[in-house]
Amino acid sequence: MEFEAEEIDIGARSPTVLLNSVDAEELGAHPLDRVQIEKDGRTTIGIVELTDELVPPGRIAVTRRLGHLTGAVNVRLAPRPNSVSAIRKKLDDIELERHELRRIVDDINDNRLNDMELAAYVIGTYTNGLSLNETMLLTECMAEVGERLTWDEPIVADKHSIGGVAGNRVTPIIIPIVAAAGVKIPKTSSRAVTSPAGTADTVEVLCDVEFTLAEIREIVDSTNGCLVWGGSVDLSPVDDKIIRAETPLSIDPPGQVIASVLSKKKSAGATHVVVDIPYGEGSKVDTLPAARELAEDFKRVGEHLDLRIECTITEGKQPIGRGIGPLLEARDVLRVLSGGGPQDLRQKAQRLAEILLEMVGVDRRAADVLDSGEALAKLREMIEAQNGDPTVTPEDLEPGAYTASVHAERSGVVAHVNNRHVSEIARRAGAPKDTRAGIYLEQRVGDEVREGDELFVVYAEKTDKLEDAMSLESRVDAVRIGSRDEALVERI
Amino acid sequence: MEFEAEEIDIGARSPTVLLNSVDAEELGAHPLDRVQIEKDGRTTIGIVELTDELVPPGRIAVTRRLGHLTGAVNVRLAPRPNSVSAIRKKLDDIELERHELRRIVDDINDNRLNDMELAAYVIGTYTNGLSLNETMLLTECMAEVGERLTWDEPIVADKHSIGGVAGNRVTPIIIPIVAAAGVKIPKTSSRAVTSPAGTADTVEVLCDVEFTLAEIREIVDSTNGCLVWGGSVDLSPVDDKIIRAETPLSIDPPGQVIASVLSKKKSAGATHVVVDIPYGEGSKVDTLPAARELAEDFKRVGEHLDLRIECTITEGKQPIGRGIGPLLEARDVLRVLSGGGPQDLRQKAQRLAEILLEMVGVDRRAADVLDSGEALAKLREMIEAQNGDPTVTPEDLEPGAYTASVHAERSGVVAHVNNRHVSEIARRAGAPKDTRAGIYLEQRVGDEVREGDELFVVYAEKTDKLEDAMSLESRVDAVRIGSRDEALVERI
Repeated sequence: MEFEAEEIDIGARSPTVLLNSVDAEELGAHPLDRVQIEKDGRTTIGIVELTDELVPPGRIAVTRRLGHLTGAVNVRLAPRPNSVSAIRKKLDDIELERHELRRIVDDINDNRLNDMELAAYVIGTYTNGLSLNETMLLTECMAEVGERLTWDEPIVADKHSIGGVAGNRVTPIIIPIVAAAGVKIPKTSSRAVTSPAGTADTVEVLCDVEFTLAEIREIVDSTNGCLVWGGSVDLSPVDDKIIRAETPLSIDPPGQVIASVLSKKKSAGATHVVVDIPYGEGSKVDTLPAARELAEDFKRVGEHLDLRIECTITEGKQPIGRGIGPLLEARDVLRVLSGGGPQDLRQKAQRLAEILLEMVGVDRRAADVLDSGEALAKLREMIEAQNGDPTVTPEDLEPGAYTASVHAERSGVVAHVNNRHVSEIARRAGAPKDTRAGIYLEQRVGDEVREGDELFVVYAEKTDKLEDAMSLESRVDAVRIGSRDEALVERI
Repeated sequence: MEFEAEEIDIGARSPTVLLNSVDAEELGAHPLDRVQIEKDGRTTIGIVELTDELVPPGRIAVTRRLGHLTGAVNVRLAPRPNSVSAIRKKLDDIELERHELRRIVDDINDNRLNDMELAAYVIGTYTNGLSLNETMLLTECMAEVGERLTWDEPIVADKHSIGGVAGNRVTPIIIPIVAAAGVKIPKTSSRAVTSPAGTADTVEVLCDVEFTLAEIREIVDSTNGCLVWGGSVDLSPVDDKIIRAETPLSIDPPGQVIASVLSKKKSAGATHVVVDIPYGEGSKVDTLPAARELAEDFKRVGEHLDLRIECTITEGKQPIGRGIGPLLEARDVLRVLSGGGPQDLRQKAQRLAEILLEMVGVDRRAADVLDSGEALAKLREMIEAQNGDPTVTPEDLEPGAYTASVHAERSGVVAHVNNRHVSEIARRAGAPKDTRAGIYLEQRVGDEVREGDELFVVYAEKTDKLEDAMSLESRVDAVRIGSRDEALVERI
């Protein structure tokens, strides 16, 4: 059928074609069906949404993601993409072959799957799992799509954390240590999706994080590393789309996690990667055996891709560091690099950097690079290369002006600090958008407290957000006080 | 946050709130998140979609499904509905309890779940299954939601087919037989979603099918039965929404099928139901054992709900009847009721009616009610009560003027008639929207044919659709000719 196309700005998720219901019936198109739009010999696929009024019969409205499609077009019902039958196979728990995984990856990349189909893929790989072989093939297929970085050096280091722990801002400490020790380490990080800060949000407090591939190359050539936002380059477009489907369901199929992480590292040109797997109540991996299994699979898939992988299994039951929120975490980072700061954050970052240096065969101790001030100097170099102020000190970083303290209601020992509650309170306070909002933890698990002692401080840039955060705080048990033995022995 | 709300007509699937990206970031709302919209003390939940231009900051646009929401409103991020954790539990293969199933049903009914979550529910019940106990509880919960029909008579008959077979228009034959035998049988049917005709589409060729509950009651009181579209009454609103999620994925979890069918029958006030389960390649149930298991489960869940259920397991490998498409099926129906017509259609309808009459203890043979012309008279009564022409004859029903014949390319025996291909060709020809479009089968499995014999005729109302249908026909093997033994023994 012939239509007059116009652009419409609605919905960022899928390439949508808005059809009048009368035309849709004529075409036999239902919501979520696909149509082929032909213009000047080029064909584009869009996903159907209906309207009775917004678009009159004879016209269609298309979202920008379809490219600039205006004027006379021909529209017809498109067949189901091939990958849908592969997804159905996974739902029936049948192992997928390489060409089927490749079709799925291609169709996700080309936005040919609607939300239901994308959800089906993600849920199928969660409930029925991905075998080690499927995971290897999927990782390869995902790495084949999108842009790639290549480096002249034979050794390129990288790190990744599978996340789920509040604070935990080890990356801006590890990268300067490794880079200062002479190893190339171009690091792309994510922004917060459901957490109060991603590494990119934290680094953005100190300097810019959005750069083109050419700019990234320049930064890395001059400093040996970078701390940039991965979203501004297209290293793993499929991964971004899969994550968008996983987030609303809070699922993270282990095979998919491995494929996502390692395909991205492969595309970024890494050769040696340390992967941190925090485990425990509230983090993404519940138990130590599950963490060990995931670590083994990471290493096996890495081997298959010619990537050297080491995994660290770390305690993820409580936040790492004291600050939670972009500025508060950046302040912790600067303090650690300056020789002070939270000891748990320092130790974890130092150990991960140590492992990376060992892996690539560099004979320097991470602690020395930290203590000598070389790592701090390297971070300042990177901040300058990324258009920030290299003279920044922790004292320059002022958290939000509106604060509220939470005090211990009884004496005892801190038995538990809940990652999820602490993150949610920081989000309510305004993080990550309000960069100076968040939480500063005054106590950690095992600390002895007396009734009335300060447990943590909530910072906000706006009073109503502070109120919102405190209203949540009053309803949850973010920091639990117990007797000395309760801190050691948890009773369920 | 305060907003000015306006209405927008976009998307029929979920109650959408279109936010400017700037406001969404401020609210911390991502696409597919839910927001609470408060106006005059009433709170409505909507699902977030973003725009940069269509709605300016400070304003929101809401779809009609949210009710008439205009003017000043307060919007805040809504928590995840409780049912999402129950759905997560099902993904982890943990048996759900009654209150969890009830929450899922309530949240689906209130449109609180986004597409991804609804897909997760449907896929979770597919990959991990529903236990018999879960199916019973789910059926109860689904029957508790929506409108109900109640009847004075102690016995109310009903029938259902789980579908998947082309043609197969037994309902408009069974209902008149049973009603003519003195048994109340108020039948609601569906329209085609992915098939070339639903029972409601076929009946609509003869009379109206959209009525209010009060009108249905009047029709049933005067004729003992009705043949109406279920979509015009709200007997199982949750079912309709679940089907909308299943269709794009072509999945039909068995437990969900039972709950959908029986909750609807319960809401319609039925006491005795015959459920037809066609099985075989191309229909919804692949194998005889699977059909038997489904039948047993139907009966057990029926018992639990105080519904008497009998199941028929029938061959679903090829279409039933000759016509496929609304008018062509209506013509078959009239022919059978007039004493002629396709014998397979007559035999199947007669047998199902026979079983229903036996179940309710009526001492009449279905064949007699058919042969005596009572069933035809009853259908005419119903057509009149539903505002149609009661004098209609098969000859009055003229199929589409544009036709093309498909001929046998070799001599032999018809080995296979493919339901899916035949349906798809009929849809391309214009069915169900073009009511006079479709297919008329000249041959059935086992028929001997000579090269050049007519296999089937395609009818269309428009030449371009006829062409489209024939172009598909040339690419698929809708009717397969083999040697005599190939028709009996299938070689894979």
